[in-house]
Parts: sequence; structure tokens; C-alpha cells
Amino acid sequence: MKLDHVGIAVRDLEDAVQLYAGAFGGRVVHREELPDEGVRLAFVETGGALLELLQPLRDSGPLAKFLQNRGEGLHHLAFEVSDIIRAIAEAGARGLRPVGDGPRLGARARLIAFLHPAAAHGVLVELVQRAP
Amino acid sequence: MKLDHVGIAVRDLEDAVQLYAGAFGGRVVHREELPDEGVRLAFVETGGALLELLQPLRDSGPLAKFLQNRGEGLHHLAFEVSDIIRAIAEAGARGLRPVGDGPRLGARARLIAFLHPAAAHGVLVELVQRAP
Repeated sequence: MKLDHVGIAVRDLEDAVQLYAGAFGGRVVHREELPDEGVRLAFVETGGALLELLQPLRDSGPLAKFLQNRGEGLHHLAFEVSDIIRAIAEAGARGLRPVGDGPRLGARARLIAFLHPAAAHGVLVELVQRAP
Repeated sequence: MKLDHVGIAVRDLEDAVQLYAGAFGGRVVHREELPDEGVRLAFVETGGALLELLQPLRDSGPLAKFLQNRGEGLHHLAFEVSDIIRAIAEAGARGLRPVGDGPRLGARARLIAFLHPAAAHGVLVELVQRAP
């Protein structure tokens, strides 16, 4: 398991890209829109870390709800795993609570799954596996 | 600037250490109590990343307030800089809002300073400099 990125929920993606690519000296390495997830996103590499800036595409959905309830800010921690099916099963066995039935296709054409924050001290954890 | 750690606010440090050192396969690399800051903390290395788990020592102070308002979860992003005085000045010049007048002594005997989340899309950013 390796830290892949830190997700940040924002209201205005371009404004946030300007901050993280500008003031924090990062660079945009990827941009994508995921209509099914209802997000527009940019990955910014800064300080050796990958930040995923996420803006909701509409007023509904988990990300829009997060912004309504908590405002902008740190949203999730993503770890890369080599076998996401096994990682989900192991997380479940260790008392963590996988969201949904299995992995789905996420940003950068990777398989992703989430672990519920309620079982992880309030931290939404994403598991990420590169396409085989 | 290099990502140093991700801070996580928790209500029960030992419980959180067990999760991050157990379920997520990390190891505790440092423990400390900072009475002036009102926190007890542990650094856990997991997935190549350093997580700083923070529990408040009393019911008042910024961390206790954070927990009361937002609950447990992701708290701050810390970047290591080589010259914190210069980094604070540069952050201010770029529209970020340094908290306080200058660096102070933080965990691991490092100089630390914070940038206000209101000017950074809701993200509390910590600057960290190793002792000269």
C-alpha cells in the first residue's frame, strides 16, 4: 500500500488549480471530467505529492453534499494497492467498511473503491489499482 | 517544498494508532505530547506517507474546536521547507494568509507555521522546517 494522492473538494476548480499550481509551485499532470461521478478534477503534483482537486458538476451527489455540509477542504486519502479485490476484502475483515459491492472505474482509468469514514476516524480512504 | 505529512484529528489517539498501524499496516515512528499546543500526537508511517494523528489534551483550543465543529478526520497538509521565514513571507506575498507572527517550535523540535484555510480552499497548510 502506497499513498497515491490526497483529494481536496473545491467549489471552483480553476481557482484551486491556480493556487496549487501557482502559490504552491505545483504542476497539473492530469485533467478529467467524470459525468457518472458528477465531478470535474485535476491532479496537481506539488512537493512530491499528488493532490486531486475535485469540483462537483451538479448540486447533488456525495461531493456536492460534502461541500454543502463541510465546505471546501481535505476530502480523502488514496492509497495504491496491487490487488483491489483482495484489499477490499482485507479492509472489511479488519473492521473497515467498504462502500459498495466492489471496485468501479475511476479517474485515470484506474479501479477505485472507498472505505467509509465512519469506521476510519472520519477519514474517507480510497483504494486505487492501476489497470492490469 | 516537499509533502512532510498529513494531519488527522482524532478523539482517541490509541484507537487511531491501532487502526493506522494495524489495519493500514503502518508503524509508529514518533510520539509526543505538546502541552502548550494542547495536543498528544503520534506519527505513523504508512504506505510511504507520514500521518500525524492528533488528539486534544483538553476541551478548548483549535484542535478541540475542530473536533466539535467537524468531527474526526483530515486536519492539515504539512510541507517541509528549507527556510520557513522566507516561506512565510512568500506565502503572504502570494495571497495566502500566515497565522501568527512567525514560526514557533512544534512537534519533533521543528519550526512550524500555519497558513489560514480560508485563503487556501479550506485546507489548513502547515510549513515545517527541520532545526538548523
